[in-house]
Formats: sequence, structure tokens, C-alpha cells
Amino acid sequence: MTSYRYARRAEILGKSVFDHEPGAIILNSGLAYPPLLPDVSMEAANAARDRTAEVMQYSGLMGLPDLREAVTGFVANDGVRCRPENVLITNGAKHGVDLACRVFVEPGDRVIVTAPTYMTSMNHMRSHGAQFLPIPQDEDGMMTEVLEAKLQRLTANNERMPKLLFDVPDFHNPTGITMSLRRRRHLVALASRYGFIILEDDPYRRVRFEGEAIPPLKALDEKGVVLALGTVSKILSPGLRLGWVIGEPEIIDRMGLQKSEGGSCPFTQRIVVDLMRSNRMAEHIDLVAKRMALHRDVMVEALARELPDAKVRPPQGGYFLWAELPEGVSGEAVADQALKHGVEVSSGRLSFPEDDPGNFLRFAYSYPEPEEIAEGIRRLGIAYREVVAGA
Amino acid sequence: MTSYRYARRAEILGKSVFDHEPGAIILNSGLAYPPLLPDVSMEAANAARDRTAEVMQYSGLMGLPDLREAVTGFVANDGVRCRPENVLITNGAKHGVDLACRVFVEPGDRVIVTAPTYMTSMNHMRSHGAQFLPIPQDEDGMMTEVLEAKLQRLTANNERMPKLLFDVPDFHNPTGITMSLRRRRHLVALASRYGFIILEDDPYRRVRFEGEAIPPLKALDEKGVVLALGTVSKILSPGLRLGWVIGEPEIIDRMGLQKSEGGSCPFTQRIVVDLMRSNRMAEHIDLVAKRMALHRDVMVEALARELPDAKVRPPQGGYFLWAELPEGVSGEAVADQALKHGVEVSSGRLSFPEDDPGNFLRFAYSYPEPEEIAEGIRRLGIAYREVVAGA
Repeated sequence: MTSYRYARRAEILGKSVFDHEPGAIILNSGLAYPPLLPDVSMEAANAARDRTAEVMQYSGLMGLPDLREAVTGFVANDGVRCRPENVLITNGAKHGVDLACRVFVEPGDRVIVTAPTYMTSMNHMRSHGAQFLPIPQDEDGMMTEVLEAKLQRLTANNERMPKLLFDVPDFHNPTGITMSLRRRRHLVALASRYGFIILEDDPYRRVRFEGEAIPPLKALDEKGVVLALGTVSKILSPGLRLGWVIGEPEIIDRMGLQKSEGGSCPFTQRIVVDLMRSNRMAEHIDLVAKRMALHRDVMVEALARELPDAKVRPPQGGYFLWAELPEGVSGEAVADQALKHGVEVSSGRLSFPEDDPGNFLRFAYSYPEPEEIAEGIRRLGIAYREVVAGA
Repeated sequence: MTSYRYARRAEILGKSVFDHEPGAIILNSGLAYPPLLPDVSMEAANAARDRTAEVMQYSGLMGLPDLREAVTGFVANDGVRCRPENVLITNGAKHGVDLACRVFVEPGDRVIVTAPTYMTSMNHMRSHGAQFLPIPQDEDGMMTEVLEAKLQRLTANNERMPKLLFDVPDFHNPTGITMSLRRRRHLVALASRYGFIILEDDPYRRVRFEGEAIPPLKALDEKGVVLALGTVSKILSPGLRLGWVIGEPEIIDRMGLQKSEGGSCPFTQRIVVDLMRSNRMAEHIDLVAKRMALHRDVMVEALARELPDAKVRPPQGGYFLWAELPEGVSGEAVADQALKHGVEVSSGRLSFPEDDPGNFLRFAYSYPEPEEIAEGIRRLGIAYREVVAGA
């Protein structure tokens, strides 16, 4: 048997988060709720039949002009003013993270993240050799005062300054926290002052259950320091594999040139154009938000009943929920024990760039039926008590 | 205005090859012939309507099981014996090149290529910091005797040995050359002996006009040293953005984990499954091959008439044609002058990893109508004579 000489980055990206245990109740995946997956058969047939020359040919690296235009309208509702030349079409938001890393990150470069942060993006940034500068969160999101102090110290010590910051300011993955307006303004000011780029990952913004929307970081950006990542995965369908990046043309043109897949699929781009131009997209988002609110309620109630020791912050939107177990109880042990009872939850460990406190769990309520959520949390309670009893 | 601190690789990937001059006759692009783009509206509507849960959800990183299975049947016709677990679905062949580089190439690693070679793949390998070990071609393809001598010298000098080899053995881009069976056997033996991986890029194999097919390198590989890249771009539609890599599970699993786009689009995967399972794929390939033979004939005849000084090797298949101008006549000057006459051809310079001889042109005959090919070459003849007269 041949033995192969792999590059270091082949060791960094580990087990796929998309592997699931057959038969288990899935409480750890941001899959779409299956009954709400849209039927796009009409849009698909129209695209294939009426626009063959457009959708069956290579399209440009930057995306279809019509979709770049449609995205400007979509984000205008959030107060983001941009033109088609500010929009790069991608194969989902993670693809945007990767392209930004290709354009900005050299091995050893520092990337600012919240601790905890979105695990999959963190792994992709790691594969580019990124080092992390972790910043804690409170109820108002990333603690930008802590960040500022760290940046001052790095400057004073003449150390390598961070080039990128990654955050999910709305309904953060995994914590569900939404960053306050004051912190948002502070963060954008810090980026301008210290010369780093903010990657604003915003898949859940439209999936709001209650409370008032806060402008995205990109709407507060006057200096071109924010790259805003969007995706249809959480509001329409993950299978279309489409997202976008909004930023300065100078940056996104370079990101487009890094694409190795010859440009995003024009066929699914055309489907999304049609959905964005019609009312279907907005109607669908309403359905998703209403449904996710119900799932959130069921999970929060079940946790209060079955796991009263856990501290849970009910999120006001999004797909994810974060729970703190009593100090000394291992989230990893509970997750492992839960799997024996046929329930998948994620240990918080995967979401920390370093220094895992050890006692956190990440849940997603998007995919299962409410009855499965309740049953899954019931079994999790059993697993939890077994771990505590055994410890 | 903010100034940005880019990574080195942002400087490496230059102008997109997909940008075209409006109104020009395009004789330098492997775009599909528009009248032959397939209408997949029925397959698309069926996929969206009947398989919503499959095509609208995240699929796995490795690809839909049905497509992995269908690809094994497709390549069995070429004598490649493999199982679904040997097949990774990608967003086209270039995506496979990039994933292979992520898994194998560290900055400074050597990659063996023919000189000239496929420009876009070369640029992506460069962006990973690859250094090239260029090997000349003759009528029988890459001169493996020259490669063997170089590998012996590197070994004797205890130098860094190459990790990868990239080649297009059937209807090579840009030269159109097909590698002989003897050379193929020799190359696979060298890969086993010297421990490098062969990336076999094979988009044009089925687009054969005449002569007998030769087994692909993968069919000769008993040691797991060949990664065979495939794509539907040149035989069906570039817009579906689908390809595959066939290799040892150990390698392709690692490549799948490097995907930043959350897995290839399940929706277009399902369309390709249906086309592969039906007769439509095979029928379509026949149409493409017949059409491309006609385009080749028109271009070869026009070049003999309008550019009799050029040495042209009529390819037996594929999309590309390579022409040698008299020594001292600059391919780049001729290409620039042709553009003034509204014709796009590529200077050979873009296809050489280093040491461009300077007097080559690359043509593609896939996209334009035969009349455009004839008219384009007529104008090229004018441009050529102007350059020679001015020199």
C-alpha cells in the first residue's frame, strides 16, 4: 500500500460536521426544517428552458449580474447601501470565509473571534494557518472594550496586528446573542483605527422571533472595512448552495479571482433571482421565522423541565441555543452519554478557539419536529443525570 | 480611502480568463457551443418536485450517493474500475485541482507539469505556492524519459522531491496531444517509484474525432497513485458546475474535508444522475464530438490558408489547437494585434510555467460558429502580416 505525504492543512480539517448517527435525534445541526423546504420546480424548469444560454454556460467569477443586482435590493432592507459591483456571489457563506482568508491570511496571521465562535468557520480559518485572538462575549455581544485593550497592548508591544475579525452579530452561533448597537459602532471604529477587516457572518438575521432589528455592521461601515457575508441556506434552502459577500470592489474582485470552481452555478443563481424578485422569498422567510420560534419555545421549555441545572439564554432568533452546565460537569461527557441514548448534541468544546471551559453544550432546534425536540431533551436529561451520578 | 494588507496569494491569481471583449470573435475560450447546450428543464423540475428533501438540504461533502455510483459506471467504459467510495463529487475539475493542492502542496513543493500546460490549473497551483518542474512534450505526450532523468538527478542530489504531477493526457490543453500507451505506463511506474501523485485531468477524452482511445492513466494505476479528475463541462454543460475525482478513499476523504462550500450543489447533482442513467448523456456526447470535429476542420483549413507560416498539429479530439509561429515572431504581439481586429486568441505565454519560447498561440474552436472561425482566422492573418511587416 502506498503511503502519502500530506500537507499540514490536511491534518487540520477533521471529521465532517455533516456526519450523523443513523436513527439518532439530531439536536446539533443547522439543517433546514424539512417540511419547509421550498418547491422550486417551476423556477428551475423556467431557468433551464428559457435561459439555456445563460444557465448552462460558464458564468463569470463574480456571479450573474441579475443576482448581484437582486442582492443589493435584498440588503437595502437592512440599511446596507451598495451597488452590484459591491456584490460577489459565492457557494454559501463559508465559501466567502474561505475566499476572504485566501485574500488576507498568511500562515501565522491573527484573526479576532469571539470565544466561543462558529466552529466550521474557525476550522477553515485554521486550515489557512490563522492564529486566533479570542474575545469574550456578554449579553451585548463581543466585548469590544476588551478587544480595544488587547489591540492597544499589541500596538504598544509592536506585535503582529490582526488582519481579520470574524463574528456573527445577529443570533450568534453558538450563543444566540445579538450584539448591541453601541458595540457595533465601537467595533467598526476599531476596525478603521487598527486596520483590520470585519467578516460579518449574518445567516440568521431575518429569522427573528421578537424584538427590534439592529442595523448590521455593514450598514455602519463608511470606510470599507466590513465584508458582509450572506446566504440563502437558513432562509430558503441549503441545497441551492448560494451566498454572497458585500464589500469594496477592490477586495471582492480579488476574492472572485481566488475561486477554484469556475464561478458559482448559474442555474441555481437564476432560481434565486426569481425567488428574490417575487414575493416568495419574503413569504418563505416569514414561515421559517414563525416555525423556528415554535421550536425554540419547545426546546427552552424542555430544558427547563429536564435539565433545570443548566443556564439557558433563550435566543430571540436564529437556529442555535447555548447551555451552560454546572461547573465541573463535562459537556463532552454529557454529549457522549446522550449519543448512547440516541440524541446528538454538540459539546461546547468544538466552538472554542482555545481554553474550553468544559461545561457547555450547543443545540440546534431547526431540523427536528417539536415532539423530537421534547423527546431528545428528555433523553438528554437522563444522560446528564447519569454523568453527574457517575462523576 | 482604506488601504488593505493582502496575502501574497492575492497577487498571484491575475485577470480572469472569463473576461471577454464585447463584440469580439472568441477563439480562445473553452465555452460550450451554444446551440448544443442541453435543455434539462424536465430533469430540473423532477428533481425539485420529487426529491425536495434531498436536493434542497445540505448534502454530504463527498456528494450524493447516487451520483458517486453513476460516475463509477461512466468511467467503467474507460476501463477504470472503482467503487462509490472512490468518487468525490466536485464543482468541476479545477475544484479538484485546488482540493488536491490543499491536501498535498506546501509552499515551495514541486509540481511536475508539461511545458506548456493548462493555464488556469497552473495559476491555482501557483496560488498554493507550488514550484514547477516543467517537462517537454513531443508527439507522444510528456517526455517521461526526460522526467525520469530529472527525478534521478534530484534523488542523487538529495533535493526536495515533487509531490504532484498535473497533466491532460487526452487532447492536451493547449497542445491537443494525446499521450501514448507506452508513456502512460512509464509515467504511472515513475509515480509509484518516486512517490508522487498524478493528477490526471481528462475533460476531453470523450470528445474524440478519430483514432482509437487509449486507456486513461487511472486504468493503469494499481498502486493508488493516480487521482483522476472528471467534469461534465465539456461534454454536457459548464453551467451545472459538476465534476469528480476518483482516487483512494484515504485521499479523497481528506479532499472532501477541505471543501469550503458545504458540499457540491445536490440539486444539479441530481440532474446529472438522471442524465447519466438515461441515454441522454451518451447521445449528447456524440453530438458534441461530431460538432467539434467540424469546427476543428474549419479552423485547420482556415489556418493553412490565412497563416501558412504557422506549424499546426490538427488535434484528434478536444477543444483546443496550438500553433507555432516562425521563430522570432511574438505570439503576444500577434494576439494583441488580432484584438484590434476584433479577434481573441491567446498568446502561448500564458500556458508556459516558465521560459516562454515566445512564438506560440493557443486557439479554442468550441464556442464560435464555423463562419466566425473562418472570419476570425482571416482577420488573424491580417494581424499576423501587420506584426511581421512592423517587426
